[in-house]
Order: sequence, then C-alpha cells, then structure tokens
Amino acid sequence: MHANSSQAPVRHGAMRAQNLGLVLGEVARGGPLTRAALAELTGLTKTTVSRLVADLLDAGLVAEAPAVPDGERGRPGVEISLSGDRVAALGLEVNVAYLAACVVDLTRRVRVRRVLRRDNRADRPAAVLAALAALGDAAVREVPGLRVAGTVLAIPGPVGGGRVHNAPNLGWRDVDVPALLGRPVTVENEANLAALGELEFGAAPRDFLYVSGETGVGAGLVSGGALFRGASGMAGELGHVAVASGAEAGGRACRCGATGCLEVFAGKEALPSPEALASGDPAALDACARAGRALGIALSSAVNLLDPGTIVLGGCYTPLFRWLSPPLCEVLAERLATLRPDLPVLVPSATGPDAAVLGAAGQVLQRVIADPAAYAEKTTDM
Amino acid sequence: MHANSSQAPVRHGAMRAQNLGLVLGEVARGGPLTRAALAELTGLTKTTVSRLVADLLDAGLVAEAPAVPDGERGRPGVEISLSGDRVAALGLEVNVAYLAACVVDLTRRVRVRRVLRRDNRADRPAAVLAALAALGDAAVREVPGLRVAGTVLAIPGPVGGGRVHNAPNLGWRDVDVPALLGRPVTVENEANLAALGELEFGAAPRDFLYVSGETGVGAGLVSGGALFRGASGMAGELGHVAVASGAEAGGRACRCGATGCLEVFAGKEALPSPEALASGDPAALDACARAGRALGIALSSAVNLLDPGTIVLGGCYTPLFRWLSPPLCEVLAERLATLRPDLPVLVPSATGPDAAVLGAAGQVLQRVIADPAAYAEKTTDM
Repeated sequence: MHANSSQAPVRHGAMRAQNLGLVLGEVARGGPLTRAALAELTGLTKTTVSRLVADLLDAGLVAEAPAVPDGERGRPGVEISLSGDRVAALGLEVNVAYLAACVVDLTRRVRVRRVLRRDNRADRPAAVLAALAALGDAAVREVPGLRVAGTVLAIPGPVGGGRVHNAPNLGWRDVDVPALLGRPVTVENEANLAALGELEFGAAPRDFLYVSGETGVGAGLVSGGALFRGASGMAGELGHVAVASGAEAGGRACRCGATGCLEVFAGKEALPSPEALASGDPAALDACARAGRALGIALSSAVNLLDPGTIVLGGCYTPLFRWLSPPLCEVLAERLATLRPDLPVLVPSATGPDAAVLGAAGQVLQRVIADPAAYAEKTTDM
Repeated sequence: MHANSSQAPVRHGAMRAQNLGLVLGEVARGGPLTRAALAELTGLTKTTVSRLVADLLDAGLVAEAPAVPDGERGRPGVEISLSGDRVAALGLEVNVAYLAACVVDLTRRVRVRRVLRRDNRADRPAAVLAALAALGDAAVREVPGLRVAGTVLAIPGPVGGGRVHNAPNLGWRDVDVPALLGRPVTVENEANLAALGELEFGAAPRDFLYVSGETGVGAGLVSGGALFRGASGMAGELGHVAVASGAEAGGRACRCGATGCLEVFAGKEALPSPEALASGDPAALDACARAGRALGIALSSAVNLLDPGTIVLGGCYTPLFRWLSPPLCEVLAERLATLRPDLPVLVPSATGPDAAVLGAAGQVLQRVIADPAAYAEKTTDM
C-alpha cells in the first residue's frame, strides 16, 4: 500500500506545474519583469519564484537581461522575458490551391514561412498530407536551433475530433488527418484559426467576426476574446448561408449540394483579380459588385444572429477590400440600419493570407505558455 | 480620519453577503439540505452556517422542515429548503397582440399568470406601459403574502441599456421603458428571456437555439447553459435573416424596411390557425408549408453560423409544430446534411406561450439567489 507515500509527490508536482504556468503566463502577458515583480504579481514567495524561473531558464522558455537603469535607483535588476531561442511552434495549412507552413518562436516572431502552390483537389488526401509533412519538415530544418513544441493544422472545412467529416472544396470525406500526416497534430477549421491569428497577430478587437475568403468561404467568431465554437465545434460556416432563392439561385448549385449558398457568389472562383479591377475592366467590376452584395446579404444575416461589432475581411477578400466594401456596406445599411443604433465596423485583415497558419502556430504557443511543465517533460529533465 | 474604523465592518459585511449567497445557492441547487450538509458543501463552519441560515429564515428566503427519517439512524435532522411563502418575482411581457404578467415564488412555482389581449400597435408606448403596470399590480395583489423582489420585462425587439432602439412590430422607436413604466425594471429582448425560460422552466439541454414565433420572429441562443448576447446585446434577430431574393422577395417588404426577411414569410400574420390546419384546409396547409420552408432556410443559416445542436420552436410555432416540422426538416436536410455528421434536433417548446414571461421572472429569482443580502437590505433588517 504505497498510496500515502506516492500521493504527496504527485500533489507537489501538480502544484509546481501550476506555478510554472502562473509565472510564465505573467512573463508572456507583462514581461520583461524582475523576479520581485513576478513574486508580487503571482503572490508566490521570492524564493519560489527564483526556483521556478531557474527551471524556465533551463527549459529555454525564458531569458534574462539587465533592466534599463531607472534614474537614481541604484543597480538595475535583471528582467525575465520570453525566449525566442529554443521553443517554437509549427503551423500548417491545407487550402484548395496551396499548402503553407510556418515556424513561430515563443516570442511570436515568425522565423520561417513557406507556401507551396498546388492543386490539392487533384490528389488524394494521403498524397496532399505527405506533401504537407515534407513542407513542414523543410520549414523546421531551416531553424536548427529551435525545438518544435507542437503542430496545429488548418483545414478549409468543418472539423470534429481530428477528423474532417466533409470538406467539399477539397473533395475530402471522412479523412483521419493525424493518421495520414504521420505525426501528432491538432486539426482545426481554417477560418477559426484565422480568426485567432487575427486576434493574436493582427489588430482585431475582442469581439469580431473574421471572414475567410478562399475557394470556400468560412468565418470565425471571437466573442470576448475567445473563439465561439458552437455545440459540436462547427459554428461559422458562413459559406453555406443562404443569400439567394428562386431564379437567382437556380442552376448554380454549391459544392455542398445546396443552392443559393454565399460561396457560389463570393468564393474565390467567382472573384476577379485585383489587377483586372485596378485596370477598370467592367466585367471584373460587375463581378466584384455582385460578390460584395452577396457578402452583404450573408453578413447581414450573420450580424442579425451573432452581433459581432466588427467584421474583418480576410483571405482573398483583403486585397479586394476597396472594391468589395462599398456594395457590401450598402447592403448592410439596407438590411440593418433601421434595427440597430450602429452598423458593424468593416475592416480588412491585418494578417492577410497568413492568418490561419499564424493562428495555428499561435495555438501551440498558447498551450506551451499555459502548461510549460507538460512541454518541458517531453524535451528536458526539467 | 475614520478610514480604519469604517473599513473593517464593510469587509465583514461583504464577506457575510458572499457567504449568504453561497449557502442560499447550495439550497437552491441541491436542497432540501441539513445544516451539517450545508457546512460540508460550502466549507464554512457549522456555527457560521447556523447563523447564516437563521438570517435566511428571518428574511423568508428559506424554510425548515423535518427530514424524512432514515431507518434506524436516530432522530431525524431538520432540512432547509427554499421558501415559497415570502419572496416572489414579477415577470412582464409586452407583445404585439397581448400583455402578460406572472408572479413566481422563490421555489419557481407560478402563483399568478395574467394575459390581456390588446392591440398594442394601436396605442402609444406610454399608454401600453401604463396598462402593463396596472396588469402587473393586479397580479401582485392576488398574492398578498408575497413581496416582489424585482421586475423584468420582455420586449419583442432589440434592447440595449433599458432603451428600445427600434421594435418595428410594435412601432416603437427609442423608447425609455423604465421611465414610462414608472418603476425600477430591467428590460430585455423577448426571445432571449424566452430562451432562459425554456432553460429554467422547460426541458431544454444546455446548448440550443430557442425560436420565438410571434408577429415578429426572434431567437435566443443558449451556449453551455448561458445566453449568448453578442457584442452589443443584440444577437438572435432571426426574423431579419434573409430567406428570399429576387422575384421571391420582391414586393413583400418587412416592417424593418428590408426585403426577404424570414418574418415576412413565417411571422404570425403569415400563419394559419391550428384549427384550419386540423380541418385539412388546403390554403392553410400551403401557407404552413411555405412558412416551414422559410424557417428551414433561415435556420439552416443559423445552424451554419451558430451550430446549436438543438432547435426549440416556441411561441405560435409550438401549436403548429406537427405541420411546420416536416417541411422545415426537409430544408435543413437539403442544406446541411452533406456538411455535418448530425442534423440539429428539432423540438417544440415545453413552456409554450409562457416562456418569455417565465424567463423574465426567473431572472429576478436568479439575482435574489446570487445576492440575497442585496435583496434583504431593501425589505428587512437582515
């Protein structure tokens, strides 16, 4: 019966793990900070903080540097910051026309970004994911000093429990992504990750709807700084919101099988290039106005239901913002202005095409910062 | 300088208020409970619990009764339950064709319910709210032993900070409701309160979209047991989600000024009576099928965006459920089945036409249970 003797160390370990997360969290939020400041912020003793900081230094999660001298106040203290020299995150993305990978260090600096243009519809999921694994490996090899703490992968379609039930734009059905990628990975919807990328790496407020324009159209809702996922993690499927009925919808079926979906009218394939628009090509301007009005209808429904405050246009919509926004805002005003004291604010994405892959890497960093002990156990003796 | 002498009692008072809420919360969640059980659940000493229970008894918030004897275990303890004899909540509702009031005691028993059929569009807001105040007073007078702890009012339209910005179905614009009602009241959107009524008094799960069918159509989203309000409290305006475009929408403007809104096709005025449907009247069956399909389009957009798991059909949709649900489910399947492993579950409301007014009263009870000291200060020497 070793129950008593084994319980104490377990409890001690759990408390130490929790305190490591507490200290690293404060450094991430407010660093650089001295050990004394960390003791004050966490309520831990200076001795405990010093021991925890030593562990975090060993694990390469933080670094120390002399504080900038503060006038007459004697010798400067040493300040603790996140370290960008050892721990990194791998973000991956499969989209219809490209694969992407990025390596981001713990200070959120993007160290490598690779994009491979590729028609992923032409290949089976296994081949696409093998190419993605190779792209990710190449990206990681470019920064040999960094250790990858984890991998998150963005997929353009609804995702539940690591499986892709149906991503019609890729032609994927019931794909077990981690098994095919051949490594531990968390799979998440592309628009959700792009919304988080915009929140963490962009300039978004704490309440917004991120709209991802690619071959498919998705959305991620951030409410009070957190992603809204819905009952089964499938919220935000803006691309299949109805924008047309009857004759307008007829004959233009969406890849999902329904008619009148936003994606048919405002997916990437319905949009002209920024060059054609800039040259004043009338057909291009017409197509963009039509897409903008369709987006206006879908987003008026989204505002009625979700009340997001701000709408961020991302993906292929970002470079088209100046052409899309006038018809879009016109429809929002037509459909919403009498009911609401304020119309939602419409802005282009600050992270552009990198939103999803940055958001993917950002999720890994958040996990490391929330539970540094779990990360360190895998890679060091800490 | 009385800072020190005055701070200690304030802190003591705050702790006592918090502990009163802790004890009353446990009684509400798990009662009847003995004092010993309450001490165990709250972590407070038995002496402290006894003192707090005495205060709650004085305030009429709890009652004691002998526990059912438990076999051979000696004399039975005394158990503490919520008391239905003193504290009550007043729920009020303004809708287009009626006013409603209900008095609910602390045990959630509905003690009085009054409905006044009335064309509220024919009158100015001041006259409507005067009639509502009279209805509420009459309801309270029917239960002379009860003291009303607070009032919440349901309004069919977007509400922000007590003001109704625009409720087009009532014809109200920028109405300061508390000022016109002439008493302290919290004003809240009708569909939001109906969703909470369904959660607390009905049989709903912790994730669902409540759909309120009246002259206007609204919705309230409950996610993880809490109401989702959006950035400015105006989420859930299902009635103005677009369901038709082009020729289908043309010429049928909504009261909000837009075209193609769900409300035009599935608001109460577009629906037949259950009697006409039961008698097999072909025009009535056609109208109901049309409304069901329109609801299906709007709700498919809502499911794509919100992923609620369950959809509860309330208000005038409840008695029409057997006729509305087949066309509605058909459209949900057409628009959602390929993208999602499961379609949302569709159920009729368990609280029927009382959902909003019950939800309104329920909000008052929640406030009393969360902070009994604040309530008791107003009404007793506790």
